[in-house]
Amino acid sequence: MPLVVQKFGGTSVADAERIRAVADHVARTRRAGSDVVVVVSAMGKTTDDLVRLAGEVSTSQPARELDVLLSSGERISMSLLCMALAELGVDAVSFTGSQAGIVTDTEHTRAKIVEIRGDRLREVLARGGVPVVAGFQGVSTERDVTTLGRGGSDTTAVALAAALGADECEIYTDVTGVFSADPRVVPEARRLARVSFEEMLEMAATGGRVLALRSVEFARNHAVPLHVRSSFTWEPGTRVDEEDPTMEQAVVTAVTHDTSEAKVTVAGVPDRPGLAARLFRALADRGVNVDMIVQNTAENGTTDISFTVPTGDLETSVAVTEGLLGALDASGVSSDAGVARVSLVGAGMKTHPGVTALMFETLAAAGINIEMISTSSIRISCVVRAERVEDAVRALHAAFELG
Amino acid sequence: MPLVVQKFGGTSVADAERIRAVADHVARTRRAGSDVVVVVSAMGKTTDDLVRLAGEVSTSQPARELDVLLSSGERISMSLLCMALAELGVDAVSFTGSQAGIVTDTEHTRAKIVEIRGDRLREVLARGGVPVVAGFQGVSTERDVTTLGRGGSDTTAVALAAALGADECEIYTDVTGVFSADPRVVPEARRLARVSFEEMLEMAATGGRVLALRSVEFARNHAVPLHVRSSFTWEPGTRVDEEDPTMEQAVVTAVTHDTSEAKVTVAGVPDRPGLAARLFRALADRGVNVDMIVQNTAENGTTDISFTVPTGDLETSVAVTEGLLGALDASGVSSDAGVARVSLVGAGMKTHPGVTALMFETLAAAGINIEMISTSSIRISCVVRAERVEDAVRALHAAFELG
Repeated sequence: MPLVVQKFGGTSVADAERIRAVADHVARTRRAGSDVVVVVSAMGKTTDDLVRLAGEVSTSQPARELDVLLSSGERISMSLLCMALAELGVDAVSFTGSQAGIVTDTEHTRAKIVEIRGDRLREVLARGGVPVVAGFQGVSTERDVTTLGRGGSDTTAVALAAALGADECEIYTDVTGVFSADPRVVPEARRLARVSFEEMLEMAATGGRVLALRSVEFARNHAVPLHVRSSFTWEPGTRVDEEDPTMEQAVVTAVTHDTSEAKVTVAGVPDRPGLAARLFRALADRGVNVDMIVQNTAENGTTDISFTVPTGDLETSVAVTEGLLGALDASGVSSDAGVARVSLVGAGMKTHPGVTALMFETLAAAGINIEMISTSSIRISCVVRAERVEDAVRALHAAFELG
Repeated sequence: MPLVVQKFGGTSVADAERIRAVADHVARTRRAGSDVVVVVSAMGKTTDDLVRLAGEVSTSQPARELDVLLSSGERISMSLLCMALAELGVDAVSFTGSQAGIVTDTEHTRAKIVEIRGDRLREVLARGGVPVVAGFQGVSTERDVTTLGRGGSDTTAVALAAALGADECEIYTDVTGVFSADPRVVPEARRLARVSFEEMLEMAATGGRVLALRSVEFARNHAVPLHVRSSFTWEPGTRVDEEDPTMEQAVVTAVTHDTSEAKVTVAGVPDRPGLAARLFRALADRGVNVDMIVQNTAENGTTDISFTVPTGDLETSVAVTEGLLGALDASGVSSDAGVARVSLVGAGMKTHPGVTALMFETLAAAGINIEMISTSSIRISCVVRAERVEDAVRALHAAFELG
């Protein structure tokens, strides 16, 4: 009998009516002849509400206690879903992360899964029942409740699918799949029937918000096929899978964009080995997640180094860099929060050299200046003015005929 | 160092401000030189809200899943309280019932504690920290989450106090202690500085709502001194303790009343052995908690049997009794939801024979008819018309000079 893991996000279980609709879908899947393991998030904005409440109570929020707090929402949704399934005659049993045997390290609020035991889930499956597992949480090797950080419920679902040898992991959300561009920006954007893990990774990393980067990495590493689909329409969505070498690749699959980054430029850095290393080590030590880095060729023995960071890290980044100006022997630092990134992603890009040229020509024809460029084998990203990024997305979507 | 268990009910942790006030009190207690273990309930009406939500989702509510749902509220309050304590520099660590080692039987929604391991609590106490434990919940011998039923958080607190050898168990609530009568009915009611376990048991059983019967029984059986007090005024409240034989007992300690029961009368039951047993076995099998039973002397070979049950069980009781009329050879059944019970409780009653007489005289002088009478060694209860019960309470409180 095939085994499918079905994960339902916060909007999919936002209220009693949505929970009953999810129960109905799970019951149909079970009756159609699949074994099902369900993973649920907290209802709607529950987790946001809990974070706000914690802020009202205290400015000190020990990570261990924050995890106890934030993990409580999934317990509510999982037990309610089991009740709705019981009403439909389905033998459903809820499991916390701890009860499901999801063992993590001790890094509270961003724990990593180290082992999935899953014995109790297998017992329920063996008797024909449906285990319903709390997403986003586990139990540490010190027996404390942990949470998995952003996108944690997706990670739970993928990790369970890998551990239980599931045939597919379905990620139900409030959109109908992965699109060739953000449909709010490009109305004619097309839903993609299938993308490769590598394309999905590049899309997640460059602004595609449907799947968290980490769960896609996990799925690729464990070869777990994903199916991103809507719990509102229930229609087939986007399958994310191994690249299929027998199929001819589309050159470009999607245009993504991201307005959440800012740019920092260090001017007049002497062209000596080790200075860049010193800068980025200092930033890493403060937890700043540097994304793109561009260094121009040195002129007159000095160079400018530009890099992008999440907007939330801009202040720290500038402070760190200013503190190092003496040590770097650099002339100054400037920052710019008015930037955005537009990216083209496509597995076929590897074998089609003309993509970069057409991208630059398209942006130039639209009068959009490129401030930084970064590439991978299946992606090209350009930093542009934030106020022009949606124009850039529309122009590229049209030029590459993605609609 | 003395060890105190401090239990805070739902109103004591109803919002961020109340949680900070509780943290302040716990921190002061700790700094004054006591070891402290805290037990918390869910915030305010959280549990009621969850019950309502479950009703919206499903009419099927498997007890195991209901327990998962209902136990989630305490996780929220315990983690928030730990955050508030951290802000005050107190090393506080939260524990679910499972983490605290509160092992129960498998009777979901009304589980009984079978063992308290408490190793993790002792570790935290040993290093000078404050364990904060979720009330109302445990983990069953089958590794499932269980809840302890009504008054469950009080039971958690008393059981932990017994297991850890605490010097006292403080029950913080929204009233300042146990009173000589309900202050809403008798404005001159007096707060009692001290009552014996036996008196408290009788008061809890006859309408005193401050402490649940079960937690008082547990405290008496394990000789855990209780201190019922307010988390709004923090003033000393009522101590509940072993009876002190060196002190002269007040004859009557308190007047209690209860309007939540109804009366059932079976008429014309033949005066034969075994018929009453058959009736009350049938009621017990349907889970009806029969309280008072009165059987009149037989006249002409038949008798009437009256008994009281919680109003919620009245319909079932009448149905069960009607179904047995043939088997009992009885002539009919009638019911009366318009009754209430007024009780006098006092350890000194044992040695003062005039109490019953003065009680009846007082009610007669007030023109209040007595419908049923039941007594224990330290309590006398009369069933009267519900609309007269508050008059009865006031008259008895004055007659026995309890103000």
